[in-house]
Amino acid sequence: MKKLINAPETVLAEALDGFAAAHGDLVTLGAERKFVRRAALKPGKVALVSGGGSGHEPLHAGFVGRGMLDAACPGQVFTSPTPDQMLAALAEVDTGAGTLLIVKNYEGDVMNFEMAAEMASGPVMRVVTDDDVAVETSTYSTGRRGVAGTMIVEKIVGAAAEEGRPLDVLKALGDRVNGRTRSMGVALTSCTVPAAGTPTFTLAEDEMEMGVGIHGEPGRRRVKLASADAIAEEMVAAIVGDLPQKGPALVLVNGFGGTPAMELYVMFEAARKQLAKHGVPIARALVGNYVTALEMAGCSITVSLLDDEAAALWDAPVHTPALRWGV
Amino acid sequence: MKKLINAPETVLAEALDGFAAAHGDLVTLGAERKFVRRAALKPGKVALVSGGGSGHEPLHAGFVGRGMLDAACPGQVFTSPTPDQMLAALAEVDTGAGTLLIVKNYEGDVMNFEMAAEMASGPVMRVVTDDDVAVETSTYSTGRRGVAGTMIVEKIVGAAAEEGRPLDVLKALGDRVNGRTRSMGVALTSCTVPAAGTPTFTLAEDEMEMGVGIHGEPGRRRVKLASADAIAEEMVAAIVGDLPQKGPALVLVNGFGGTPAMELYVMFEAARKQLAKHGVPIARALVGNYVTALEMAGCSITVSLLDDEAAALWDAPVHTPALRWGV
Repeated sequence: MKKLINAPETVLAEALDGFAAAHGDLVTLGAERKFVRRAALKPGKVALVSGGGSGHEPLHAGFVGRGMLDAACPGQVFTSPTPDQMLAALAEVDTGAGTLLIVKNYEGDVMNFEMAAEMASGPVMRVVTDDDVAVETSTYSTGRRGVAGTMIVEKIVGAAAEEGRPLDVLKALGDRVNGRTRSMGVALTSCTVPAAGTPTFTLAEDEMEMGVGIHGEPGRRRVKLASADAIAEEMVAAIVGDLPQKGPALVLVNGFGGTPAMELYVMFEAARKQLAKHGVPIARALVGNYVTALEMAGCSITVSLLDDEAAALWDAPVHTPALRWGV
Repeated sequence: MKKLINAPETVLAEALDGFAAAHGDLVTLGAERKFVRRAALKPGKVALVSGGGSGHEPLHAGFVGRGMLDAACPGQVFTSPTPDQMLAALAEVDTGAGTLLIVKNYEGDVMNFEMAAEMASGPVMRVVTDDDVAVETSTYSTGRRGVAGTMIVEKIVGAAAEEGRPLDVLKALGDRVNGRTRSMGVALTSCTVPAAGTPTFTLAEDEMEMGVGIHGEPGRRRVKLASADAIAEEMVAAIVGDLPQKGPALVLVNGFGGTPAMELYVMFEAARKQLAKHGVPIARALVGNYVTALEMAGCSITVSLLDDEAAALWDAPVHTPALRWGV
């Protein structure tokens, strides 16, 4: 295992300390590093809280700030945060208007956030994201997995929360955005969880994993490495075929951590051509590492249908460590 | 070679097409893909032009836009752009106030930009960046290499150009910022140039290259993999020992392309502790992949002394594909 770390046991704590130090104008680290929260809360606003296993950075802590999340609970790498982390975050960021949880659909996350919601003192609702069209159930999930589309839900619902919309409206909006968002991924290499010390899986030098999950868990099938155009053709067909309708969309080409920008733009170009064939106009584009799997090489494509409301909320100001515009 | 591409011969063209399509609100691709230019030029402003071999994305094309570069010339991977690319860019973006070239100190880049400057019709000055303290001369450079500090020069000089400062003042500012900026890098793995198809170099499973260049070229020495703290200690000592003075600084922990955010924040935390020991306060922080070497695992640390003027120019609005704030 080759990593820029001191020891597997301290990676998460040191990364969180570094993150909080680098972005001290935006975020504060909670006691015992249980959560990262927005430095300046906005009283009367519904609190948005997410979280999940670490290793997907910048998701979720990188999206804490104005116009997006109020808190994020980081679990150990690829491991759900605990209910007491979530409870501590809820207690800190609920300013009286209630809390909306944004939860990726993995069994541990769903169960722990549910426990925390039951124990919380204020009203709590939740949106469970499940945008991955690759598989119906998988290693860690019953039903589809929540992947890169989650950050789109966080951004759009975050903007609506910032505007002061109430909890039930935000919950409905989050479900609607999730229902109009589809993703699929591909991996060329594995990642290595620091505490494990060895690669999560192995791929031969000429193989790829189509439909891979963001923990390196299996997807649809392991096949020979194909061209960017062929990969995009299969992924876009699966995504568009599963969308409830066609229309202008936000397209995210998301790197998993080990793929250079040059290849992500090649994939964006390949996806763009496929989307044109399918009659899906690109209304907004985002290319980069946003929902990663440590240093895994590969990427995902996400297509999220944008109606006028969602487009305006996407464009609204956001100021977080990893996403910033209009501020 | 495992890459998300169609063919080595078409990688650059397709990446540029994808880049221009994804960021069409900010940039325009020149004829024959000779350069990427700011979509909306600002007449009367000194034009800022940079460029260099591709494979370092987002440098330089990702920094084209308001408050930073007016044009960037992308060479083939790790290969200098040609003088005719530069001339075409100069002809397009010089609106009458002259052009400042920002050139990383590699022999091919320096020579080709010099030829282009001689052939250009308007006044041209240049700033050559050489912030890498690792080695004095190396594979592609006489004198120190220009590395991640280059993007700091581009940002600060870009903000000053946007304010309307004249060519000679910008040239002096660029030289001053470069003179107050130092970097050093470390690699844990090699990168693979698509046209070569095989890794640029090899490192054993327990080795790292201290002082590596951004093309994977050798640095100071190849040694056993060390802890993040030990790596940061050596790098920060070399950097701070070479700075002309101590004072508040912008600290950039820059990923080379294959290292996950979690490790970059561990390195930031390690660097932060070392800088505190050396009495260098962190005035601004930036952590992420900004000046890469394809998918190389590793990172560099850059420390740039910020006087009040440089800090204000760093904070000034910027709107490019890869760096954006205040807009």
